[in-house]
Amino acid sequence: MASRRFGVLALLSQIILLILFVVWVRYDGDLGDSSGMDQSCATRLTEIDCLAAGCTYNAAESTCSGTPTILDQRYPYYQDVHVMIFIGFGMLMTFLSRYGFSAVAYNMFLACIAFQWAQFTNTFWHRIFEGEAASHKIRMTVENLITGDFAAASVLVAYGAVIGKTTPEQLLVMALLQLIFYSLNESIGVIEFQAVDVGGSMYVHAFGAYFGLAVSFMLGNSRPTASGKQLHRNNSNNGSSSTSDVFAMIGTLFLFMFWPSFNGALASGSAQHRVVINTVIAIAFSAMSTFAFSNLFRRGRFNMVDIQNATLAGGVAVGSSADLLIEPYGAALIGFVAGLISVVGYVYISGLLDRYLRIHDTAGVHNLHGMPGVVGGLGGVIAASLAKASDYGSALGEIYAARATGTTAGEQAGNQLLALVVTLGLAIGGGLATGFVLRLLPAPQSPFHDREFWDIEEHAGAEASDEPDTIPLGSVTKVSPLM
Amino acid sequence: MASRRFGVLALLSQIILLILFVVWVRYDGDLGDSSGMDQSCATRLTEIDCLAAGCTYNAAESTCSGTPTILDQRYPYYQDVHVMIFIGFGMLMTFLSRYGFSAVAYNMFLACIAFQWAQFTNTFWHRIFEGEAASHKIRMTVENLITGDFAAASVLVAYGAVIGKTTPEQLLVMALLQLIFYSLNESIGVIEFQAVDVGGSMYVHAFGAYFGLAVSFMLGNSRPTASGKQLHRNNSNNGSSSTSDVFAMIGTLFLFMFWPSFNGALASGSAQHRVVINTVIAIAFSAMSTFAFSNLFRRGRFNMVDIQNATLAGGVAVGSSADLLIEPYGAALIGFVAGLISVVGYVYISGLLDRYLRIHDTAGVHNLHGMPGVVGGLGGVIAASLAKASDYGSALGEIYAARATGTTAGEQAGNQLLALVVTLGLAIGGGLATGFVLRLLPAPQSPFHDREFWDIEEHAGAEASDEPDTIPLGSVTKVSPLM
Amino acid sequence: MASRRFGVLALLSQIILLILFVVWVRYDGDLGDSSGMDQSCATRLTEIDCLAAGCTYNAAESTCSGTPTILDQRYPYYQDVHVMIFIGFGMLMTFLSRYGFSAVAYNMFLACIAFQWAQFTNTFWHRIFEGEAASHKIRMTVENLITGDFAAASVLVAYGAVIGKTTPEQLLVMALLQLIFYSLNESIGVIEFQAVDVGGSMYVHAFGAYFGLAVSFMLGNSRPTASGKQLHRNNSNNGSSSTSDVFAMIGTLFLFMFWPSFNGALASGSAQHRVVINTVIAIAFSAMSTFAFSNLFRRGRFNMVDIQNATLAGGVAVGSSADLLIEPYGAALIGFVAGLISVVGYVYISGLLDRYLRIHDTAGVHNLHGMPGVVGGLGGVIAASLAKASDYGSALGEIYAARATGTTAGEQAGNQLLALVVTLGLAIGGGLATGFVLRLLPAPQSPFHDREFWDIEEHAGAEASDEPDTIPLGSVTKVSPLM
Repeated sequence: MASRRFGVLALLSQIILLILFVVWVRYDGDLGDSSGMDQSCATRLTEIDCLAAGCTYNAAESTCSGTPTILDQRYPYYQDVHVMIFIGFGMLMTFLSRYGFSAVAYNMFLACIAFQWAQFTNTFWHRIFEGEAASHKIRMTVENLITGDFAAASVLVAYGAVIGKTTPEQLLVMALLQLIFYSLNESIGVIEFQAVDVGGSMYVHAFGAYFGLAVSFMLGNSRPTASGKQLHRNNSNNGSSSTSDVFAMIGTLFLFMFWPSFNGALASGSAQHRVVINTVIAIAFSAMSTFAFSNLFRRGRFNMVDIQNATLAGGVAVGSSADLLIEPYGAALIGFVAGLISVVGYVYISGLLDRYLRIHDTAGVHNLHGMPGVVGGLGGVIAASLAKASDYGSALGEIYAARATGTTAGEQAGNQLLALVVTLGLAIGGGLATGFVLRLLPAPQSPFHDREFWDIEEHAGAEASDEPDTIPLGSVTKVSPLM
Repeated sequence: MASRRFGVLALLSQIILLILFVVWVRYDGDLGDSSGMDQSCATRLTEIDCLAAGCTYNAAESTCSGTPTILDQRYPYYQDVHVMIFIGFGMLMTFLSRYGFSAVAYNMFLACIAFQWAQFTNTFWHRIFEGEAASHKIRMTVENLITGDFAAASVLVAYGAVIGKTTPEQLLVMALLQLIFYSLNESIGVIEFQAVDVGGSMYVHAFGAYFGLAVSFMLGNSRPTASGKQLHRNNSNNGSSSTSDVFAMIGTLFLFMFWPSFNGALASGSAQHRVVINTVIAIAFSAMSTFAFSNLFRRGRFNMVDIQNATLAGGVAVGSSADLLIEPYGAALIGFVAGLISVVGYVYISGLLDRYLRIHDTAGVHNLHGMPGVVGGLGGVIAASLAKASDYGSALGEIYAARATGTTAGEQAGNQLLALVVTLGLAIGGGLATGFVLRLLPAPQSPFHDREFWDIEEHAGAEASDEPDTIPLGSVTKVSPLM
Repeated sequence: MASRRFGVLALLSQIILLILFVVWVRYDGDLGDSSGMDQSCATRLTEIDCLAAGCTYNAAESTCSGTPTILDQRYPYYQDVHVMIFIGFGMLMTFLSRYGFSAVAYNMFLACIAFQWAQFTNTFWHRIFEGEAASHKIRMTVENLITGDFAAASVLVAYGAVIGKTTPEQLLVMALLQLIFYSLNESIGVIEFQAVDVGGSMYVHAFGAYFGLAVSFMLGNSRPTASGKQLHRNNSNNGSSSTSDVFAMIGTLFLFMFWPSFNGALASGSAQHRVVINTVIAIAFSAMSTFAFSNLFRRGRFNMVDIQNATLAGGVAVGSSADLLIEPYGAALIGFVAGLISVVGYVYISGLLDRYLRIHDTAGVHNLHGMPGVVGGLGGVIAASLAKASDYGSALGEIYAARATGTTAGEQAGNQLLALVVTLGLAIGGGLATGFVLRLLPAPQSPFHDREFWDIEEHAGAEASDEPDTIPLGSVTKVSPLM
């Protein structure tokens, strides 16, 4: 049933966030101080700070000079990531033929609220772990915009697991709760374990996927309506059409193209260059691997679900090691394997999760973000155990900060593994808790259909409303070409 | 009726423009002189010129050195703006389900002719007001491409008010006439009043919207055919379908994502960095505000028209003050209010304009560009009145050139207000005059339908042509799923 | 018939490519050596090498200093090119209403395999002609990614000529064979003739188009099934719908917007700036010219095929001379003429090729890439004959390397012409040979239809499969609105 609950909750959230912005958020010093047009490099005394701001570092004299070009450096990457969040995820979600408005629009509001709220959850946990005073202002630069979009990505991955089965107010609450766990997990991994994950294989993808699956598990159990088992699988509205599948491919392609920017958005120098090369190679190999195995496993035909998703698995899997010296063939191998695993997931594993664990995964995020994210995390463990000072030189300390202070390769590898384990634990635990909260809210009356929460009578006429909600008859999904 | 009038007019316009290019347009000195590969910084003696070209300014010695990187600086922003013009506006216009070809294609030719013609209208009025000789060549750099796209944006906003109700030749004439007024207004504002408007809230958005509404008013009165009142409102072809609405959302999302680039395309340094941060925050808050109020004002359901448009209002409204020290919460507040006003416009005001003022606004540009543009202009007045030298330091003169030569904050605020008033006056006056001219040309026979000017028989078969043009029966628009 | 042949071939290709990557491909020295984070400028002693890496060259002392910014310079252009390859070509191909999955997905795998394989074909021929040892590693930088996408563009142009009439395994084989000829031709042109072609009018567009036409000629003769003549022309599935045509326009617009990045991706400094200005102007004039002549030649109506394609002809035609001092009006004239020629091609020439030469050109690549590519090549001949040292100064040797070693303007023009002739010869010869090989593989059973190679039963129900393959009755194509 249509309801103003979403509007009230959203309005409330905006008022609170507006107050939080007034109290805590200011421009970064370079942007807001009286110098205005000029930004200062001279104040940045460590090499990393200096280079990260786009200044020139003089190692002999330990001075930093020039004009910061952080915006020039980061902005093209930020915009690519932004396109992935809003068009990439947004259009990919439109594969459901009767849920196009909801898919793309809920994606939009989830990304917006995630960007706003993550400014505070990220800062909160970082300050807890680093002991910084809560009263300090949050200093905004373009990097805050990027980390805000990373947080949004994790929320949107979780959204993929529950799309069609949740009301907008449930999604809003889910995002607000998820980010608390997301930022906690990222802070533990980055600060406590000093585990690196430049492309977010663990912190973004694996976390989002397992969080979403845990929420879906809780939601699924809560709804023993209709004809019982495999509730969502047999819903006639849970299907795609030729048109909606081509729309979804627009999303796939934008994710595919801009994945190097996602993995490299916060890297610098040669490390960023390696991220780009490694990610392009890994995702190209995962795409080819997907085409090959989709054809082989599906009796000589391609399946659009595989092509829309598994082609991207190489971008997820190479995330943790994309800035490392894995050489192009290492990236190729990671991509090839990720594509294979992801196709296996879509062909065989999703059905098993649904049937035996009662976990329904609408968009198959377990296959695209879950398993490849874990593979990427394990790749990061292996890469950390192999990273030698003789290969990396002074860059070793830039990439693995802990190595500069005495941590051994083996210890770093152990820490990477711990971060992965904690990620899975917090994702599942947080997801179960969040799912429990979401069950307190009313569930949607027309799953996988726009009609419940959208003014669509005037557009599509009677056609859209004269069909029953759930037809539990055939096993094959039949979809009329509404879209 | 199909007609070759457009072809003849377009051909004529291209021949004249080709001659204008031969006579007046050359590469900028750096690009066309014998040094070729190298560009010179040393010739740029003022600080602004020097920094704007991407050179390094030595304030102590007043010298400029380095290699100009203006292309590197501007090109990513230019391409983002370009995507907004062609994909953003173009796809957003496809919301009309029977007018998809016209929507996206007329958008394309309007943007092309506007880019070409604006080179000359901009230069003409600037030289009139600055007293430069007409015989000087126009020196092209990437910045001319950007200002050409800004002019195109204003034309496309006006196009939104009259889409579906105009022939291609009327649109061509409208663009050619509008740009004369557009450039006149911008020259008065920038040169006479020295009013700043980095994102074009006034010069681009408000001007385009009120110009288009004035044209629509004139066109509407000219056609007392069919069943009389609310001619366009009851046209059965004036409606969307599920598919066309998802197409339109692609446009919305590209406008949403790249709005920071539009507002910041011609800013530099810290000012550009602030534009990016402020615009991202403002538009995210206007999106959330739109979702909340659409749900609240529409009895618990979202409306696709709100989501496609009002979500963007924050980008329009923050335009005039995006480079100023308004702090993130200032941007958030502007965005929140703009979203609210824009939703109110779509829910309540558009119908009143149509019923009582006989102004039919097909795409609702009054709600997205008109009112938020005025809000932005007023925001610029307030910001100018508050701008203190103690906050901005030396940057005050960079942002408000007049302040460097003795203008007070109050005078600057007054000038900003004058620029807004002149903008509204020239937009409405110019639009009425242009609408009068357009009435001399034949009106379309099949409003809101592609069939009149497109070869579509071979594609869509008989299906598209066996329905009467205007069905004045019900009050509810019913659209068959042609698209 | 569905078949696993594609999967087996694709898997085999990936295993071989993986081995090639292991044996031959490494990071470029700057990225993979022990300095890691820092990249070295000091090792780049020639001016071109130094500037190309984004370092600062001191001509007086012949030293190179600074930090290489090649990634910063090239990456935004690379991403624009990437969007053209995957979204631009990919969506443009979806104009066939029953072939949407195949169009966009085969485009994706062709681009991926082309990027992978071109690393080796490019290197192979370059080393043959330059006498470099085969055992040297291929050193990857972002520039290899760009040249890989250029190779993909040529394959996708050829794909346009045969789309709908080929199986996925035929396309895979075509790409692998085409790139051998593509790289051979480019090596002859660039190394032997030192013929410049910054935007690939000859090497990419003309080569791809005539190669594809030659393949199509061979394939066409091989299938005397059904009712004989004009086999593909009368196929009821070879048609578009309103929706598929709007999808295709998304591709057109992305190609249109990012063409300046394609032409300028490997240029630098002022030359790159001129490429951007010239390409924007040329393509805007070709768009207006297309709108005018489509209206004039089509009896007062626009035709979507013209608008989707001929609008882009200016980008192709200006390719060979985009970095030269042709002045904005030169670019405008080239664009205007290219648009005219391309519309003439779609209206008059395609039908003649099909009827009299038995060459069926599904997407009309002869009109968009073939003829405009030849026009561009001839423009390059004229520009080379006019290039004087007094206009270009020291840049002459940067643009025409041969001129720095004594070649005259006339000789350079002759070499440009030779490169064009060799391009046409190798394209046609290579295409005929490749077409001969493709005839050894089974042809598709359902041309222009997704059903043969895609799991679509569960999506679109019975609707898609109850129509015969080829209906040779009427002369007008009728398409049901599947998509």
